[in-house]
Amino acid sequence: MDLFFEHGYDATTVAQIAERAGVTKSTFFRHFSDKRELLVAGQETLSRLLAEGISAAPPDATPLAAVTEGLRCASREMGPVSRKLGSRIKVAVAASAELQERDALKSVGLAAVMAGALANRGVPTPAARLAAELGLLAFKQGYALWVEADGTDDAGLEPYVLAALDELYAAARTLG
Amino acid sequence: MDLFFEHGYDATTVAQIAERAGVTKSTFFRHFSDKRELLVAGQETLSRLLAEGISAAPPDATPLAAVTEGLRCASREMGPVSRKLGSRIKVAVAASAELQERDALKSVGLAAVMAGALANRGVPTPAARLAAELGLLAFKQGYALWVEADGTDDAGLEPYVLAALDELYAAARTLG
Repeated sequence: MDLFFEHGYDATTVAQIAERAGVTKSTFFRHFSDKRELLVAGQETLSRLLAEGISAAPPDATPLAAVTEGLRCASREMGPVSRKLGSRIKVAVAASAELQERDALKSVGLAAVMAGALANRGVPTPAARLAAELGLLAFKQGYALWVEADGTDDAGLEPYVLAALDELYAAARTLG
Repeated sequence: MDLFFEHGYDATTVAQIAERAGVTKSTFFRHFSDKRELLVAGQETLSRLLAEGISAAPPDATPLAAVTEGLRCASREMGPVSRKLGSRIKVAVAASAELQERDALKSVGLAAVMAGALANRGVPTPAARLAAELGLLAFKQGYALWVEADGTDDAGLEPYVLAALDELYAAARTLG
């Protein structure tokens, strides 16, 4: 992230990244298929946590309550380091079409994972898709505000994401 | 699309595409920056139509009614050729990670355009984002069903998309 920030994403090579991290290029490639994957590292973990939280919700939980559990599970894993990196990642993504694509794919992937976990609970397809999008929007919005507020509070990501979800769900009642 | 279908997307070159279309490579590149862009050709038109429809809705239209106008505008532009190409595009996208990324970026872009057009109408941010996602889900779902049903009816895309929107909006009431 330092290198992307100093030289720009496009101008940074894997050789430079490996050197800065004190590893060989082949070690780098054992963990990441290319430098782009650095910025979405954690997508698998995030997907797993979202799905686990949704699955672990009580059987009688509404789709929204199940999504809330998924968001809680995922949010708790994000600590101060994630918060600090967040604004740098934002700058890097804003400056690179390639990263915007990868980021878009990540969003679509996370929504699909949540929709799948909801479908496994017996939630009908349209409700599952919609609840997953609501969860994704809440996660992205909460994360953005949490990163922006870095330095002003010591809060975890969870209250930010849950507040965003509440706001979105309230908005859902004003659309029609 | 024929070439992608015959040889696979990865194995198809721009030279082959240009030859099959009876144009030079430089003509191809005047219209598309690379072969990937072929599959999302029309994204700008689609964005424009969605935004125009939303903007043209009566001032007192609800966010959902405005999105409905956007979807109507865009759906009316999709004719039998789009319907026929749809299943081939689906196969090509399913087989290529590169195309899935571009397709994800298209989705994110269309949602952003709709959210922007709604914000211009004074719709608050959370409601605008949510209504935009609802519109995007409806468009994608309606389009998928319309393409699947090719050959079974002569319907346009519009009724498919509006039915999907109705279904999603009904689902929104069952989430909580």
